[in-house]
Amino acid sequence: MKLKVLVVAGDGIGPEVTAEAVRILRTVAELGGHDFEFRNALIGGAAIKAHGTPLPESTLEAALESDAVLLGAVGSNEFNALPPDKRPEAGLLQIRQALGGYGNLRPAFAWPSLAVNSPLKPEVTDGADIIFVRELLGGLYFGTPREWNRETNSAYNTMRYTRDEIVRVARVAFELAASRRQKVTSVDKANVLETSQLWRATVTEVAKEYPGIALDHQYVDSFAMHLMNIPRNFDVVLTENLFGDILSDEAAVITGSLGMLPSATVGGKVNLYEPVHGSAPDIAGKGLANPLGAILTAAMLLRHSAKLEQDALAIETAVRKVLEAGYRTADLVRGESKQKLTTQEMGQKVFEALNEI
Amino acid sequence: MKLKVLVVAGDGIGPEVTAEAVRILRTVAELGGHDFEFRNALIGGAAIKAHGTPLPESTLEAALESDAVLLGAVGSNEFNALPPDKRPEAGLLQIRQALGGYGNLRPAFAWPSLAVNSPLKPEVTDGADIIFVRELLGGLYFGTPREWNRETNSAYNTMRYTRDEIVRVARVAFELAASRRQKVTSVDKANVLETSQLWRATVTEVAKEYPGIALDHQYVDSFAMHLMNIPRNFDVVLTENLFGDILSDEAAVITGSLGMLPSATVGGKVNLYEPVHGSAPDIAGKGLANPLGAILTAAMLLRHSAKLEQDALAIETAVRKVLEAGYRTADLVRGESKQKLTTQEMGQKVFEALNEI
Ligand SMILES: CC(C)[C@H](C(=O)O)[C@@H](O)C(=O)O
Ligand SMILES: CC(C)[C@H](C(=O)O)[C@@H](O)C(=O)O
Repeated sequence: MKLKVLVVAGDGIGPEVTAEAVRILRTVAELGGHDFEFRNALIGGAAIKAHGTPLPESTLEAALESDAVLLGAVGSNEFNALPPDKRPEAGLLQIRQALGGYGNLRPAFAWPSLAVNSPLKPEVTDGADIIFVRELLGGLYFGTPREWNRETNSAYNTMRYTRDEIVRVARVAFELAASRRQKVTSVDKANVLETSQLWRATVTEVAKEYPGIALDHQYVDSFAMHLMNIPRNFDVVLTENLFGDILSDEAAVITGSLGMLPSATVGGKVNLYEPVHGSAPDIAGKGLANPLGAILTAAMLLRHSAKLEQDALAIETAVRKVLEAGYRTADLVRGESKQKLTTQEMGQKVFEALNEI
Repeated sequence: MKLKVLVVAGDGIGPEVTAEAVRILRTVAELGGHDFEFRNALIGGAAIKAHGTPLPESTLEAALESDAVLLGAVGSNEFNALPPDKRPEAGLLQIRQALGGYGNLRPAFAWPSLAVNSPLKPEVTDGADIIFVRELLGGLYFGTPREWNRETNSAYNTMRYTRDEIVRVARVAFELAASRRQKVTSVDKANVLETSQLWRATVTEVAKEYPGIALDHQYVDSFAMHLMNIPRNFDVVLTENLFGDILSDEAAVITGSLGMLPSATVGGKVNLYEPVHGSAPDIAGKGLANPLGAILTAAMLLRHSAKLEQDALAIETAVRKVLEAGYRTADLVRGESKQKLTTQEMGQKVFEALNEI
């Protein structure tokens, strides 16, 4: 099959980790006789430096012409003094909006060989396998009006949702649940927020289209606690944009490192794939970054944009084997004697494992 | 000394746990020769049933005439069908607003004898001692305009802050830090929200009034992760209203049970004291509730409203001793052989320990 992938590596560790993800995608193409084409474009701080804007027109055009966009990371301390709409992060929010994907899938999976890396007890994480469906184009992120008024010394943002925005992302969650453990947990703050009341009413309605799937509603505050107490209780977790941002980062502790987490954003014109971790400027360029989040993101790309489920599974198996063999990047090394690898070396190990599957 | 306390026990387990807290306060009064006067009033579902409104005028008047308000819990499934401004929770938000306290202090402390109760590894919780300063009268909770429009099938809420609202709660955090480990972590989402940008700029300014206190800014998403990875790194954590709601519940896992957490709201006309846990209707009236959250809330009342620091410490010591002696309420019982007590029996044990100090 043919697939056009735009790689927007971005800032900090973005280029290092996407390089390893691309290498794995090339390997899959070679092994399977597929025709994957890769182009590169700038975003974030890198784009500000080259073009004065965090999302150049040329990047956006290239993205819209591709079958999938693979993003590295966005964000750089250099630009902290700029107003929000000029900062690297603005490029990320703009490309999300332009591509139109509203369902951000964020798995949090307890890899057995990484139990020692989690602050949670092994009996708590054992068997945990959650996927967040985070609404990505609504709520406080994009809601208007919004303002920081320097004359009145006040500021406001708007959390806004329409029924249609909730229906479409809820369907993503229920479809996903159908292929998993038939269970959706919807998270809101309906005891306080009107937006959450609309959210809860709408999700309850959508649930009727899926009679086989159990739906549970939880308040965001107590969910943040239950998620740590009994992660095994959850399967598909459906949330609005900001709640999903907070909760999916919290869920990283189930996995043991933010560096392990992939994500895929579906439903728009072109799907967007990005590891959950940030640009980590402090370790950029030192070979310390964990490429597994980006590599697992590549697996999600194959699954959702190329329908190559077997190849996605093969990558996930390769990652599991490499971890079981004791290989670790810096973020994963703990007291015990594990072999510490650079970003590239870890990519190489996954490459080798993949060739053996 | 003389102290007038209004007890609004509220719904579910509220009456059971406040009864034990009041008993401990009476003991302190007797032992110290103080004159504490207790009155009772209705709030939440209990008030809706008796007066058709979650915060009757008579409760509010009594609250404003007292030196401190001790609240149990608010919330009941019976009223889930009512619009938000008629539900039990509306009574809670109204009394918070009427009393005017904007600084909600929520300690999260790792009691050594409860390490087995936390989903976190003991080496992670060991020594953790955090206090959240949650802004309680601003943000999405009270921001207008807000609406669920059933004609357009859309809804919105407003997250709103003024500089003055941020300054006053930031001062609470810095003052507190001065008596602790000289460190404030301010949590926001300044890479996306204008409200957070104002928050960050204002907190940075207030920090200049406290040259001895270190200030650190964190994004709410990665903070939710760091809080679990290295709770010991944090001392005073300053946040806006909703972030504080989510993060302080998440921090309950450091302690091992939501039932252990007290809170105090300061800065207004009358301070408000409430355990962090909810009304837990499923276990109400069965003697299963943990009264220690309410009892530790009584200790905060003595500390902040009566300036009886020694008595506050004595209660905290009594709780520690009772836990060390192996006594547990249902929420705290784990596999090992601990003596399981009812709500009242646990209150009795703290009473006895207090008499021995
Ligand atoms: C960088 C930031 C704008 C972004 C977000 O908040 O969505 C990030 O935290 C994420 O979760 O992808
Ligand atoms: C019951 C609810 C309105 C309340 C809140 O969100 O403030 C509760 O969760 C709390 O944290 O005290």
